[in-house]
Amino acid sequence: MEINHILVAGSYEKEFKKKLPLDLKQSFRFKPVDEITDADLSWADAYVGSQPAPGFHFSRIKWVHSFNAGINNFLEIEGWREHNVLLTRTVCSFGQRISEYCLSYVLKELQYHRDFAAQQLAKKWVRQTPKMVKDQTIVIFGTGEIGQEVARTFQFFGAKVYGVSLSGRQKEYFQKAMTVSDVNTVISEADWVISTLPLTKETERLFNQALFSYFNGAAFINVGRGAVVEEQALIDALDFGSVRHAVLDVFAIEPLPKESEFWEREDITITPHISAVTELDEAIDCFIDTFRKVQNGEQLVNQVDFSKGY
Amino acid sequence: MEINHILVAGSYEKEFKKKLPLDLKQSFRFKPVDEITDADLSWADAYVGSQPAPGFHFSRIKWVHSFNAGINNFLEIEGWREHNVLLTRTVCSFGQRISEYCLSYVLKELQYHRDFAAQQLAKKWVRQTPKMVKDQTIVIFGTGEIGQEVARTFQFFGAKVYGVSLSGRQKEYFQKAMTVSDVNTVISEADWVISTLPLTKETERLFNQALFSYFNGAAFINVGRGAVVEEQALIDALDFGSVRHAVLDVFAIEPLPKESEFWEREDITITPHISAVTELDEAIDCFIDTFRKVQNGEQLVNQVDFSKGY
Repeated sequence: MEINHILVAGSYEKEFKKKLPLDLKQSFRFKPVDEITDADLSWADAYVGSQPAPGFHFSRIKWVHSFNAGINNFLEIEGWREHNVLLTRTVCSFGQRISEYCLSYVLKELQYHRDFAAQQLAKKWVRQTPKMVKDQTIVIFGTGEIGQEVARTFQFFGAKVYGVSLSGRQKEYFQKAMTVSDVNTVISEADWVISTLPLTKETERLFNQALFSYFNGAAFINVGRGAVVEEQALIDALDFGSVRHAVLDVFAIEPLPKESEFWEREDITITPHISAVTELDEAIDCFIDTFRKVQNGEQLVNQVDFSKGY
Repeated sequence: MEINHILVAGSYEKEFKKKLPLDLKQSFRFKPVDEITDADLSWADAYVGSQPAPGFHFSRIKWVHSFNAGINNFLEIEGWREHNVLLTRTVCSFGQRISEYCLSYVLKELQYHRDFAAQQLAKKWVRQTPKMVKDQTIVIFGTGEIGQEVARTFQFFGAKVYGVSLSGRQKEYFQKAMTVSDVNTVISEADWVISTLPLTKETERLFNQALFSYFNGAAFINVGRGAVVEEQALIDALDFGSVRHAVLDVFAIEPLPKESEFWEREDITITPHISAVTELDEAIDCFIDTFRKVQNGEQLVNQVDFSKGY
């Protein structure tokens, strides 16, 4: 499908520019949804946004891409089939992104990447049998959609996976779920503790000296929010050895300030909040991916089937 | 269970010594199975081997560990239940080991481990969205037990996985399987090409200039045998850019000679043949793991259930 004029409902010009290849032939027009005029709609052959603009009409529009997974607001418009307009939606993959991030650092350690890289530099051939994921015990804080996807991934490899949540309610993919007050035993057995927690009144500074004192050499991965960790308590736990390594993608202050002690520690791995891109980033990624496929006539996994309504 | 005298049927002393912790209180006795005497059997409280010694009797033996997965030869002995003897077997995990090895290096690249490590050293915060396994195309040479397990792993994450084998027969977990003569198109689309091939007349030097010429920037992972690769052809392909990176666990000559050009190349990752330990190594690992669990009274996944016979 040939697309030349893309109307984006929202002031996302900066975010799009960061992601879009610079050599696009297509024209983009960015406008807050309420300021979109009839002339804009007539100019566009593609419309991208969370909702239809007031007075939305298809005119020359051949493709609509919703920034949401749900597309009920777009389906209220009539004439999709008559005008032969393609409707696609945003399918997010936070859980899978975060799973792959966590798994990459777990495998890095189990497979001795660091040792073998050092040996290669020294032209040394010293065998060391990698450890296996199935022998790892993993405690995941947060048993929502993301925590569950992380659990599903580690369970696939046979790891023992425990979940920690406010309710302690059992969830699929966790061998057992529990509340924070019951967590001391499993944390002391854990090889890895992963936080996928959002920041709330209950989770703020949850990982404090008391909680870290239960760690018995586990590595700590934080892919939730930085402020759930009391940073000095983490440093003390690393110094003491109760936490053997920390992989941190999120921090109380971001970007992490230059003067932070974290940067220089060999027992901390720092990544710049990339384990799950923000919702807008993810949505733009999904749009760009869909855009490429639409242009090339490739198969779409996120095309709305009007007979099913999703 | 307390175990003090371990009788090993086989001349594996050197291999055991490489793996066993040096501070063990237990005594080991290593003997070829046909030389094991009645006195040896009476001395032992544990017996380890591929088969029962001639004239095998339980005497003080409380635990028998088979070096095989199949244990029919041991089950022919009578009195297991009466003497309350524990029988365990070797459960191998080649396929899973190799899968985790491959996945670890795929994720290392997709998650930009190298870039983020360099940024941390420079105290730099520059975001870069990791790529996802689901967007990778992976061609696996060898569709046997190991190749299939590697395919199953990448398929779990949604990658597009093709298989290459002598027969080209379709196998589970492969989107499509084919023979080497049909491989040019998928190799040119591949992000990763993985060889799990054994060394045979047909596979020797299979990865030569002609085959590498189909590569269109894919990375190459070799976890099969080194001699399936013509090493100069690989170097040429790396220089030319048709192969973007090679992760090599196996080599035509092992240990890899100090004078090999491979060591110093940044576009080659070298590991010392550890992706799948040899069968004996694997068996000894399984024994040591079982031994530890038996001593600590932990749950065993490889205990033979006499009512089921496995």
